[in-house]
Amino acid sequence: MALTPEQAAEIERQRSTVTTTSRAVSPGLEEVLYSAHEVLDHGFVRVIDYMGNDDAVVQAARVSYGTGTKKKRSDAGLIRFLMRHRHTTPFEMCEIKLHVKLPIFVARQWIRHRTASVNEYSARYSKLDREFYLPAKEHLAAQAGAAGRQGRGNILCDEQADRVLASLKGDSALTYQHYEQMLSSENQQGLARELARINLPTSIYTQWYWKIDLHNLLHFIKLRTDRHAQLEIRLYAEELARLVRLWVPTVWGAFEEYEQGAINLSRSQAELIRRRVAGERITHGESGLTAREWKELCEVFDFGS
Amino acid sequence: MALTPEQAAEIERQRSTVTTTSRAVSPGLEEVLYSAHEVLDHGFVRVIDYMGNDDAVVQAARVSYGTGTKKKRSDAGLIRFLMRHRHTTPFEMCEIKLHVKLPIFVARQWIRHRTASVNEYSARYSKLDREFYLPAKEHLAAQAGAAGRQGRGNILCDEQADRVLASLKGDSALTYQHYEQMLSSENQQGLARELARINLPTSIYTQWYWKIDLHNLLHFIKLRTDRHAQLEIRLYAEELARLVRLWVPTVWGAFEEYEQGAINLSRSQAELIRRRVAGERITHGESGLTAREWKELCEVFDFGS
Amino acid sequence: MALTPEQAAEIERQRSTVTTTSRAVSPGLEEVLYSAHEVLDHGFVRVIDYMGNDDAVVQAARVSYGTGTKKKRSDAGLIRFLMRHRHTTPFEMCEIKLHVKLPIFVARQWIRHRTASVNEYSARYSKLDREFYLPAKEHLAAQAGAAGRQGRGNILCDEQADRVLASLKGDSALTYQHYEQMLSSENQQGLARELARINLPTSIYTQWYWKIDLHNLLHFIKLRTDRHAQLEIRLYAEELARLVRLWVPTVWGAFEEYEQGAINLSRSQAELIRRRVAGERITHGESGLTAREWKELCEVFDFGS
Amino acid sequence: MALTPEQAAEIERQRSTVTTTSRAVSPGLEEVLYSAHEVLDHGFVRVIDYMGNDDAVVQAARVSYGTGTKKKRSDAGLIRFLMRHRHTTPFEMCEIKLHVKLPIFVARQWIRHRTASVNEYSARYSKLDREFYLPAKEHLAAQAGAAGRQGRGNILCDEQADRVLASLKGDSALTYQHYEQMLSSENQQGLARELARINLPTSIYTQWYWKIDLHNLLHFIKLRTDRHAQLEIRLYAEELARLVRLWVPTVWGAFEEYEQGAINLSRSQAELIRRRVAGERITHGESGLTAREWKELCEVFDFGS
Repeated sequence: MALTPEQAAEIERQRSTVTTTSRAVSPGLEEVLYSAHEVLDHGFVRVIDYMGNDDAVVQAARVSYGTGTKKKRSDAGLIRFLMRHRHTTPFEMCEIKLHVKLPIFVARQWIRHRTASVNEYSARYSKLDREFYLPAKEHLAAQAGAAGRQGRGNILCDEQADRVLASLKGDSALTYQHYEQMLSSENQQGLARELARINLPTSIYTQWYWKIDLHNLLHFIKLRTDRHAQLEIRLYAEELARLVRLWVPTVWGAFEEYEQGAINLSRSQAELIRRRVAGERITHGESGLTAREWKELCEVFDFGS
Repeated sequence: MALTPEQAAEIERQRSTVTTTSRAVSPGLEEVLYSAHEVLDHGFVRVIDYMGNDDAVVQAARVSYGTGTKKKRSDAGLIRFLMRHRHTTPFEMCEIKLHVKLPIFVARQWIRHRTASVNEYSARYSKLDREFYLPAKEHLAAQAGAAGRQGRGNILCDEQADRVLASLKGDSALTYQHYEQMLSSENQQGLARELARINLPTSIYTQWYWKIDLHNLLHFIKLRTDRHAQLEIRLYAEELARLVRLWVPTVWGAFEEYEQGAINLSRSQAELIRRRVAGERITHGESGLTAREWKELCEVFDFGS
Repeated sequence: MALTPEQAAEIERQRSTVTTTSRAVSPGLEEVLYSAHEVLDHGFVRVIDYMGNDDAVVQAARVSYGTGTKKKRSDAGLIRFLMRHRHTTPFEMCEIKLHVKLPIFVARQWIRHRTASVNEYSARYSKLDREFYLPAKEHLAAQAGAAGRQGRGNILCDEQADRVLASLKGDSALTYQHYEQMLSSENQQGLARELARINLPTSIYTQWYWKIDLHNLLHFIKLRTDRHAQLEIRLYAEELARLVRLWVPTVWGAFEEYEQGAINLSRSQAELIRRRVAGERITHGESGLTAREWKELCEVFDFGS
Repeated sequence: MALTPEQAAEIERQRSTVTTTSRAVSPGLEEVLYSAHEVLDHGFVRVIDYMGNDDAVVQAARVSYGTGTKKKRSDAGLIRFLMRHRHTTPFEMCEIKLHVKLPIFVARQWIRHRTASVNEYSARYSKLDREFYLPAKEHLAAQAGAAGRQGRGNILCDEQADRVLASLKGDSALTYQHYEQMLSSENQQGLARELARINLPTSIYTQWYWKIDLHNLLHFIKLRTDRHAQLEIRLYAEELARLVRLWVPTVWGAFEEYEQGAINLSRSQAELIRRRVAGERITHGESGLTAREWKELCEVFDFGS
C-alpha cells in the first residue's frame, strides 16, 4: 500500500493531537481525520482539515432569509429546500482540504475542476517515487463501440490481459530505470530533474493537497461518479462521496434525492411523459427523439411495447 | 428614454464604422451591435462586442474529440449533444461584452454572478444623473403569501398604487435635490462625491460594461428568467435571451430543449412517474413527497383524480 | 452599537461551546471567535469559522517541494520565501468565514472581490432594520481636487457639517418612514418587500456571511487599506488586518515586509535609482517621468535639491 | 514541423475568408490570425479569435470614470495610469482564443492558471499522434545547485547529451509501439484507448483551445517568462508576449514599463535604498537582509564595495 512507516507514524501523531475549539465540528469527519483511504493500487485520499458542517449550511441560509424564515422550517427541511431549488451559495460555506495520491493521468482530469486550490508535489524540486498504476485484471477492458467513442467494453481475455500488463509493467520499469540513470551524478553530471522526468509515463503517481468548497465538491462528485467518467477517477470520486456522507450527512441525503438520483427530462421528453401519464400510447416513431434519447428514456421509464 | 442625443449620435457612428476581419462573425448580432435595447423606464442593454458564434462552439468541441468524431455528427447535432450531456466547456469559447444601464437594486442582484468582468460607473469620480426607476402601475404588487416569503402577489388597487408612486417619486426627487445641494460649491465647499451619494436610493440608475462567456451567460439567463427572480431583473434577462438567440441560434435552440424547457425530477418523483407509467395509480398520501413537491409535480403531470 | 441583547446572548453561547478537534488550531483567533468587532456607527466584523494556521501554509508548501526542502529552511523562513516570490497557492490553503454588517454603499465596493462566497440578508424575504450610516463629523470632507478626481479634501467647517448631517439624517428617516408605510397592511395590502425597499438609501445597513481564502483576503486588505480606497471600507479592511495578524502572525509579518510595506519601481524609476545609487545627480527634467510619477518617487526617496 | 498538409490548407482557407464587422479590430493581430507560430520541435501557438484592442481597454475605463475624466488624459496616458495603479478590470475586457500544441508536461504547468477556458484533445476519444518533445542539445542541462532546488545548471557535455537523447528517443518510440499494439484489434480486442494511453510519457504532444482575458494573460506571461520558469513553457510564454505586442501595442508598452521591467523592493530593501540615496554607505552586515535578498539587491543596484 501507499504509506511508508514514517507516514503511518506521522498520521498517528496527527490523529492523537487533540485540542479544544469553539468552531463548528463534524463528529463523523473527526473520526477519520488524517487517515489514508486507499484508492487504486498505490493511491489514497486523506482529509487534512475541514470547515463547517450541516449546521453551517443552515446558518448561512438563515442569514439570507433574515428573521423571515427563522424556525419556520426544520434544518433538514431547509437543506432539502436549498438543494432542490439550487440555492447553491450556502453550500459554499463549508470547505475541505484533502491530501490525495493519484496517477498523473487521473490528476489531469481532476485539475479541470478550476474552483479549487492545489499544491502539487513538484518533480522539478524532488525525485518522483517508483510507483506506477497497474490496472487490476478485471478492469482491463476493450475499447467500447465504434470510432469516436470513449469508454470501455468487454473485459479482456486472460491471455491478452497478461500481455497488456506485461507491457505496462515492463515499460514503466524501463523508463524509471532510465530516469534514475539520467539523474545520477556518478561519473557524469546529473541531468536536471525537470528534464529527466519528461519521459516518465502518465501512470506514475503524484500527490497534492486539494482544497475545495462543498458546493464545488458535490459538483465534482456528480460529474466524476457518472458512468461516462473513466473508472479510475470514478473510484476516487466514490471515496470522496463516502467522506461527504460522514462530514455533512443531511446535505448528502438531500444531494442523493435531488441531484445524484434525479432525472433531467428535456422539453420533448417531458412532453412525452405528460402525454403518457395522461393515458396516451407513445412510440419512438412519433416521439421526435433521436434513437439515443429514446433509448435513454426507455431505460428509465417502461413504456411497454 | 435613456439616450442623450450625443449618445445616439455616438451609437450611429459606431454602427457605421465597418472594417474587415477574418474572425468568426455572427450575422444576427452584427445587425444589432451597439444599439440600445430598452428595459424598464430608463435602462438599456447594448452589445458592444462579441467573440465566436455557433461554429466556434463546434470547433472547440471537435478539438476534444479529435479525429474521432469528425463529420460523424452534424454541427447542430453536436451542439445538442454537448448541451444534453452538460459538456459545458465549448460554450465558454464564446464571449460577449454588454453595456447595461440599470437601477442599483438590480445591479446588486446581477453582480452576484461572479464569473464575469465588470467596469461600473463610479460615483466617486463623477456625479450620478437624475434618473430613478419608477415601477409601472401594473407592476406594483402586494407582498405574496405569509411572512418569510419573497415575491409579489396581487396588483395594488389604483388608489394605493398612486400613493406608492407619489411616495417613491417624492423621496427620490428630494434626496437628489439634497445630493446636489451637498455637492454644490456655491458659498460652501462641495461635499466629497463619495459621501454625498450615500443617501441616494437604490432605485437610481447606474451603468456598466459587463463581459461574460456564453456558458455563464446561459446560466445567468436560466436563473434570472425564473419566475422566482424579481420582475425587474427578469426583464433584463429576457432581453439577454433575445440577444443570445440572435447571436448563436443553434445553441439557443439546444438550450431551450435541454435547459429552459427541461424538468428536473427528484429521485422520489422519478420513482412515482416510473410507477405511474407502468400503470399504477398514484396519490399524494403514498407518494412520500411534501405538499409543495407534490403540487409542483401535479402542475406538470396530470395524475387524474 | 450594533448588537441586540439576543445577539449578544447568542454570541456568548457560541463562544462558550467548546469541543475537541484534531484539526489545526489558531490560538489567537480562537480568542476572538464570534465576538463582534465594531466598525463605523452600526457595523461589525465577526469571525464565525476558520480553517488552517501558519503551519497549514508551511505544510502545503512542503508537499510541493517534496523531500527536497524538508528541514532546509525554518517555517518562518519558508513563509517569507513564499511571500517574496509570490508563490501564492499555499496561502489559499487557509480559509476564514466572517459575519459582516456594513452599509450598502460599502457592500457594493466589497462585492467586487469575486473570489469569495457570500450569503447576504435578503430584503425580498425580510424587512430591513432602521439603521443608517451617519458619518462622524471629523470624516465629513470636501471633494478633493479638480473634476475627475476621487477622494476627500479638507474637513468641512462645523456649520456646513451640521447642514449635511441634518440632511442625511432627515432623508433616511423620511424614506424609512415611507418604507414602513408602504409595507404596512393596515387598511391596505402591504406593498411587496422587494419593491418597497428600492427607495431606501445606500447608507442603510445590510449584513452577510463572507468566506474567503487567506491569499485573496490579503489581496483585499492590500487594495482596501490603500489611501485611495474610500475611508469607510478602509476601516473594515483595517479590522480585517488585525484579525489576520491574530490568525496567522508569521504570514502577516511576511505580508508587511513584502507587500504592504513594499515599493514597486517602474522600469524607468528603477533606472533612475540605479544611476543615483551609482553617484549621479538626478533631476525631473532629465528623468523622463511624468510630474506625478516624479512626485511619488520623491516622496519615497530624497534626491536632494 | 507540426502541421500536416491538410492543416496548412485549412489555415490558408481560414485566413482568406474575410467578412465585414462593426466590432473593434486589431490590425496587428488580423495579420497573423490562424497562422502557426512554431514553439519547440513540434509545438505551435495559433490565434483563432480575439475580442477588443487598445481602445476597448480605454473605453471600459472611461465608463468607470464617467464624464469626469473624459478627454482629460490621452488614451495612452490612461492605459499607463491603469497599469501603474493596478486597475486591472479594464484589461479583462479583451479576450483571446488560442490553439496550442504542447507536450503534456508543459500542459500540466500551463493548466494551473485557472481563470481560462480549455478544450483539450481527448485521448479517450481519439488516438494520440506519434510526436514527442526531444530537447535540443543546447537545452540539455545538468541539475542546478544542491538538493531542493529547481532549475538547470551547466549544459551537458556532448557525449552525455547523446546518451540522454538516445534514452529519451528510445523509450518514447518503444512505449508508442506498445501503445499501438495494445490498441490494435488484429487478432485481439483493442484495449480501451483510455487505458492504453496511460503508459505514454509526458513528453508526448497534446493540443487544446485556450481562451483567456488580457489581464490574466499578462499575469501568465509575467510568471512564465520569469527565469525560474521551466525553459519549455518559457518559450511558449515568449511567443504569447510577441502576440500581445501585436494585439494591444499600447497595453504592452505599459506592461513592460510597470510590470515586466519593474522592481519590487521589500520594506527593508526600500529603507536601505532610502538611506543610500540620502548618502549613507550600506553594507550587508548592517542591512538586516538575508544573503539571498542582499545578493538580489546588489544585482540591481551597485552599492560599490
